[in-house]
Amino acid sequence: MDESAIDELIRTRHPGRALERPFYCDPDLFEREMERVISRQWLLVDHASRIPNEGDFFLFEIAGESIVVVRGKAGEIHAFFNVCRHRGSRVCRERQGNTKRFVCPYHAWTYGLDGALRSAPLMPEEFVPTEVRLSPCHVRVLDGLIFLNLAERDPTDFDAQVEPLLPFLRVHGLGRAKVAHRELYPTEANWKLIVENYLECYHCAPAHPQFSSVHSKAKILAMGAGLGSGPEHAMAAFQQELAAWQEKARSLGHPTGLFNDQPGSPYWRSADRAPIGRGFLSESQDGEPVAPLMGEFKDYDGGQTAISFNPVSHLLMSNDTATLFRFTPTGPTTAEMEVIWLVDEHAREGADYDVKRVSWMWDVTTRQDQGITENNQAGVMSRRYRPGPYSQLEGAVESSVLWYLGLMSRPGDDRD
Amino acid sequence: MDESAIDELIRTRHPGRALERPFYCDPDLFEREMERVISRQWLLVDHASRIPNEGDFFLFEIAGESIVVVRGKAGEIHAFFNVCRHRGSRVCRERQGNTKRFVCPYHAWTYGLDGALRSAPLMPEEFVPTEVRLSPCHVRVLDGLIFLNLAERDPTDFDAQVEPLLPFLRVHGLGRAKVAHRELYPTEANWKLIVENYLECYHCAPAHPQFSSVHSKAKILAMGAGLGSGPEHAMAAFQQELAAWQEKARSLGHPTGLFNDQPGSPYWRSADRAPIGRGFLSESQDGEPVAPLMGEFKDYDGGQTAISFNPVSHLLMSNDTATLFRFTPTGPTTAEMEVIWLVDEHAREGADYDVKRVSWMWDVTTRQDQGITENNQAGVMSRRYRPGPYSQLEGAVESSVLWYLGLMSRPGDDRD
Amino acid sequence: MDESAIDELIRTRHPGRALERPFYCDPDLFEREMERVISRQWLLVDHASRIPNEGDFFLFEIAGESIVVVRGKAGEIHAFFNVCRHRGSRVCRERQGNTKRFVCPYHAWTYGLDGALRSAPLMPEEFVPTEVRLSPCHVRVLDGLIFLNLAERDPTDFDAQVEPLLPFLRVHGLGRAKVAHRELYPTEANWKLIVENYLECYHCAPAHPQFSSVHSKAKILAMGAGLGSGPEHAMAAFQQELAAWQEKARSLGHPTGLFNDQPGSPYWRSADRAPIGRGFLSESQDGEPVAPLMGEFKDYDGGQTAISFNPVSHLLMSNDTATLFRFTPTGPTTAEMEVIWLVDEHAREGADYDVKRVSWMWDVTTRQDQGITENNQAGVMSRRYRPGPYSQLEGAVESSVLWYLGLMSRPGDDRD
Repeated sequence: MDESAIDELIRTRHPGRALERPFYCDPDLFEREMERVISRQWLLVDHASRIPNEGDFFLFEIAGESIVVVRGKAGEIHAFFNVCRHRGSRVCRERQGNTKRFVCPYHAWTYGLDGALRSAPLMPEEFVPTEVRLSPCHVRVLDGLIFLNLAERDPTDFDAQVEPLLPFLRVHGLGRAKVAHRELYPTEANWKLIVENYLECYHCAPAHPQFSSVHSKAKILAMGAGLGSGPEHAMAAFQQELAAWQEKARSLGHPTGLFNDQPGSPYWRSADRAPIGRGFLSESQDGEPVAPLMGEFKDYDGGQTAISFNPVSHLLMSNDTATLFRFTPTGPTTAEMEVIWLVDEHAREGADYDVKRVSWMWDVTTRQDQGITENNQAGVMSRRYRPGPYSQLEGAVESSVLWYLGLMSRPGDDRD
Repeated sequence: MDESAIDELIRTRHPGRALERPFYCDPDLFEREMERVISRQWLLVDHASRIPNEGDFFLFEIAGESIVVVRGKAGEIHAFFNVCRHRGSRVCRERQGNTKRFVCPYHAWTYGLDGALRSAPLMPEEFVPTEVRLSPCHVRVLDGLIFLNLAERDPTDFDAQVEPLLPFLRVHGLGRAKVAHRELYPTEANWKLIVENYLECYHCAPAHPQFSSVHSKAKILAMGAGLGSGPEHAMAAFQQELAAWQEKARSLGHPTGLFNDQPGSPYWRSADRAPIGRGFLSESQDGEPVAPLMGEFKDYDGGQTAISFNPVSHLLMSNDTATLFRFTPTGPTTAEMEVIWLVDEHAREGADYDVKRVSWMWDVTTRQDQGITENNQAGVMSRRYRPGPYSQLEGAVESSVLWYLGLMSRPGDDRD
Repeated sequence: MDESAIDELIRTRHPGRALERPFYCDPDLFEREMERVISRQWLLVDHASRIPNEGDFFLFEIAGESIVVVRGKAGEIHAFFNVCRHRGSRVCRERQGNTKRFVCPYHAWTYGLDGALRSAPLMPEEFVPTEVRLSPCHVRVLDGLIFLNLAERDPTDFDAQVEPLLPFLRVHGLGRAKVAHRELYPTEANWKLIVENYLECYHCAPAHPQFSSVHSKAKILAMGAGLGSGPEHAMAAFQQELAAWQEKARSLGHPTGLFNDQPGSPYWRSADRAPIGRGFLSESQDGEPVAPLMGEFKDYDGGQTAISFNPVSHLLMSNDTATLFRFTPTGPTTAEMEVIWLVDEHAREGADYDVKRVSWMWDVTTRQDQGITENNQAGVMSRRYRPGPYSQLEGAVESSVLWYLGLMSRPGDDRD
């Protein structure tokens, strides 16, 4: 599919309806997505507690790219593309580990933890090693959350982007958290089907019985997938329940609020605090807490904090746990979801928390979503697939699609 | 391969020779085939006894499409594309079963057995559910044979197409038959190599010893793959054997005859009745009957009825069994053959028939054809493959190729 | 990638640097390579002792092509494409064996050992069987080495091409050798990464400890991958060691010398004799001989003969063994390496040689190269891969790349 055909598809998209088939399978369109959408985001990839010590590293892999994320000498975190500047070999073959330096297994070009070339034997005289370093990947750490940005030149302003989300984030103290569990869900579906699935709770009643047994029905209708996912009348119906909970939360000194980006914003962000509902204190099977309080929380307030940094980077947090979601394209019709569960850094497994209880909700729910999106992918491949109209609970899908199409329409300018 | 290159390939095809390499592997050419050839046929897909009761259904799958075939409330059979009108999910995930309705597993849009939308919760006011139904697939049932036509608009006239075949079909009473056995043969070859293989018996002597041990040698040369497959002199040599058998058949009140389409016909059909030969009463290993008489037959007449509805939909029938062949493309270089064996609906397995005896001939022969066509596919992928001349026994291959090229030359007009 | 984009890539290649990403993965570029580079080489494929008797045959397979190599009635060797001239079926389904003729398994067209059609039943009158033969593949045998050339019309002059290599080859008596062992190394990498790896010894120190424990360090730097692979100052440093060894070799009546093609030559060939080093008599783990002397050698002189017929066809030979390397593309991102170890035809396994000792060096080294090139392939697929500068030990890589780009720039003229 050539560039003008992609442009035409974008231009003729019917508002309020799902996207046409090529968006979910065309390899050329996927390449444009990688360049204009995915490579321009601050991608939430992991938690800093994975690499606590100098020289600790892991690989982040996305659509054929491999990026080394490593703790440097001063405790800072570096990231660079896993591609030797000589003939392109991967310099790091382990998925995670600890090292003093990265020695390319091919010709032994040696790079420091900051990606700078330390030595390259037998090079011609005109070669200046000090000018050479592994191609850097922008990296920022916020409260222990590691964000990467694959843009080749100037990435968007990280601080400006996260600023409105900080009041929701800070209280959870994720900088003093640790990973309790992680699970990878490889999925035979285009990444946008995963995003669209995450951004609506229209499917919660039919497809997620466990989720629906925990969460307030009024909330599911009003903002089950965040502010803007449900219609105004549902928000009105939920108002009383929300207000009562907000009062209780404020009385404990806990933050409340609702935030999302409006049309025209360069970002697609969302953040809110709302009651889980039904008197549940945590997003657990029985409503009871599953771990010690995190961060600044004084008591269990029965609330859940949802933060979306962008459509592929999310947090869902109770007072005692935080769940990190990353949705990563691996090809035009494949992606992976990873869910990482965090608890307070001092919590002791077995004594203070049980992994099964902590991970129950989002393990069972993400497995369901894996099946749902793969079934969706199979269907949209049909020559008879025609995008249908969104329901009243798919407002956030529509807003994210508009944001996506906006990015897809703007030529990239960060390739040197 | 762009459209003009495909047109040039069609235009420059050398008469009397096999097709050029791209016909057997090019993905763009395959897409045109799906649109202009396969989607315009009445495809024989199964026997109605597979879904005897209201709500019984099965999926027919072809080149990424999934079509639900279901028995409705009044006993009628419906077919529709397995693609939800909301966001494209497959609405039916079981390959066969029974249901009262189809509830999309994603958002619970619910469709009746006729494909009409029954309910879709929380849709905007302007949404009119009664205007929505699963995209229909044309379906016709003839003597228990289920035919689907994937054309989006007006399909060709089914009644006109089958009319000359009825005298050959009716006597077999397939409307009062049941499935004795079915077998799927996935094949690593382009679907046309399967068709070309079926439409000539030039390979029978070298490649099918069992078939050749059963059938009259004179018939194999004259019309081993149906009327028009062999040369005139072979038909002349077979004339006496054929006439003697016809006389016997007529004396029992059984039909006889030879039919096929002439050049210029929009169809490629064939039907004939001829003796199996060697005194065999059925197409069995020992020549003895393998099941009770079917339909209107008064006695075993030693004849075989061959009907081709089109190059991918065939029947081969003795007095006691009927064998249904469907050849289904699954991709540019893959296809599947399914063979379904039918016997009289009252025949009792074990007592009246033995599955091994019923299926012997076409199970062993189809396995051989699977190997042959895969080997053929491997060869035509060579850069040195040059289409060679057809023999005197490949007349039906040539006529089917001409019909195919005619369809490939005519732009589709049934896409909305 | 269209033809003009490929031309642009070739035109803008930066001298002294690795190739851009599309050279290692683009399917259109790969097709051009097959036509303009690979199909124009005299490919070293095997040793004649594999097919000693009339009717012995094996298949050589390369990028979807299958070529039958067979010993004929007069002891001569024939080669032809494994594609029936009728409808393109493979005529030979066994990978190796013995036969009196090739009977196509589809319609029994029968070909002699020379590829000429012997019989084709039931063909039209105008068909002239004597004009038909399997599409021939050029074949030459030199000292037991079988070379194929896939060019459709006039291949390059074999005799002229091998002439300067004969002084290096003849003394090894490969015409009186036999296969001691063979090993196939399927590799997930473009074939040029394998070639580039073979043509430099810059990676020997970091990646091949066994090789580096055997070979002279000065030689590795000077000409570890053949004449021209290292810089002049390293050649100067190696001069004394080389001259001393040459004197010894000449005193035994053994040949010495250094040869390679200069820029502008239509060929890329190389041949040299040099000391293994460290007093080793053979390229073995302990430096001791591993088999009886081959050919005309009078004694173990501690030398190694390296011959490259072209970048994908190589020999490395001690006095007692010869190692044949063929690098064969199988697709844009896959290839296979085969290594064949030869010993004198009279040597007895167990008594005169041990397979493990004979194959030690190049089995362990080729396995390492398999890993290295697959890791290199993974890296060059990155959007951030940028071709880096070659070291002083990669002179032969640069010269082979220039030769390759020259061939890629010249349109083919041998397609009928």
